[in-house]
Amino acid sequence: MFDRIDHIGVAVDDLDAAITLHTGTFGMRLVHRELIAAQDVEAVLLDVGESHVELLSPRSEDGPVGRFLARRGPGLHHVAYGVADIDDALERLEAAGVRLLDTTPRAGIRGTRVAFLHPAGCGGVLTELVQSATG
Amino acid sequence: MFDRIDHIGVAVDDLDAAITLHTGTFGMRLVHRELIAAQDVEAVLLDVGESHVELLSPRSEDGPVGRFLARRGPGLHHVAYGVADIDDALERLEAAGVRLLDTTPRAGIRGTRVAFLHPAGCGGVLTELVQSATG
Repeated sequence: MFDRIDHIGVAVDDLDAAITLHTGTFGMRLVHRELIAAQDVEAVLLDVGESHVELLSPRSEDGPVGRFLARRGPGLHHVAYGVADIDDALERLEAAGVRLLDTTPRAGIRGTRVAFLHPAGCGGVLTELVQSATG
Repeated sequence: MFDRIDHIGVAVDDLDAAITLHTGTFGMRLVHRELIAAQDVEAVLLDVGESHVELLSPRSEDGPVGRFLARRGPGLHHVAYGVADIDDALERLEAAGVRLLDTTPRAGIRGTRVAFLHPAGCGGVLTELVQSATG
């Protein structure tokens, strides 16, 4: 059902420093930058193989990433798996008893369709599904 | 320098349940299982695209994963990037001022050579480098 790791999401408290680390030191290419108003975060995508690192910088303290940072500090926030058909994947996961945070896909970064699964049903891992804009 | 996400490491408190979730519900293939005595964990690898999910189950409470579980509960533990030449990568990262946990590579799972970078120098993310056994 899952084709690849689409990205890992990393909560950052210093976006410029995180970009410098990933582009300068790690040599990854910055490929996208977008303000996600609904989640109150600025997101930056960096290429690595068939996957991305997604840096998430909160624009406020009471959004989901701001609260994560206050509670746990910067670090790994979620993993996202690429799927070919997100509607089908959600249907199958729900039928298998997995607890969904999004029962229907919503608009994600860079024209994607995304949905989150509840970490409580995924061994404590906040898990996202991503269907890319190109299908 | 980094070719791909080699794996994400997930700390689990119930290995059987985590295997059932990843193989049964998520449909990933279990490809390897190994007891890592030096770290007091049982590790299970599942295929996803060019990457893996690595489930880490502590065999004691005072190993690194046991302490992580006691402090933070189950969930994302580290990310590992695949490199072609781990000696060269470590040299370049050290020259760039990145704090290393392993200054020389050590034996990893499935015949790999691995080294960890300190999370404090990686935006709070415990980061591993992996050179596969096939080079």
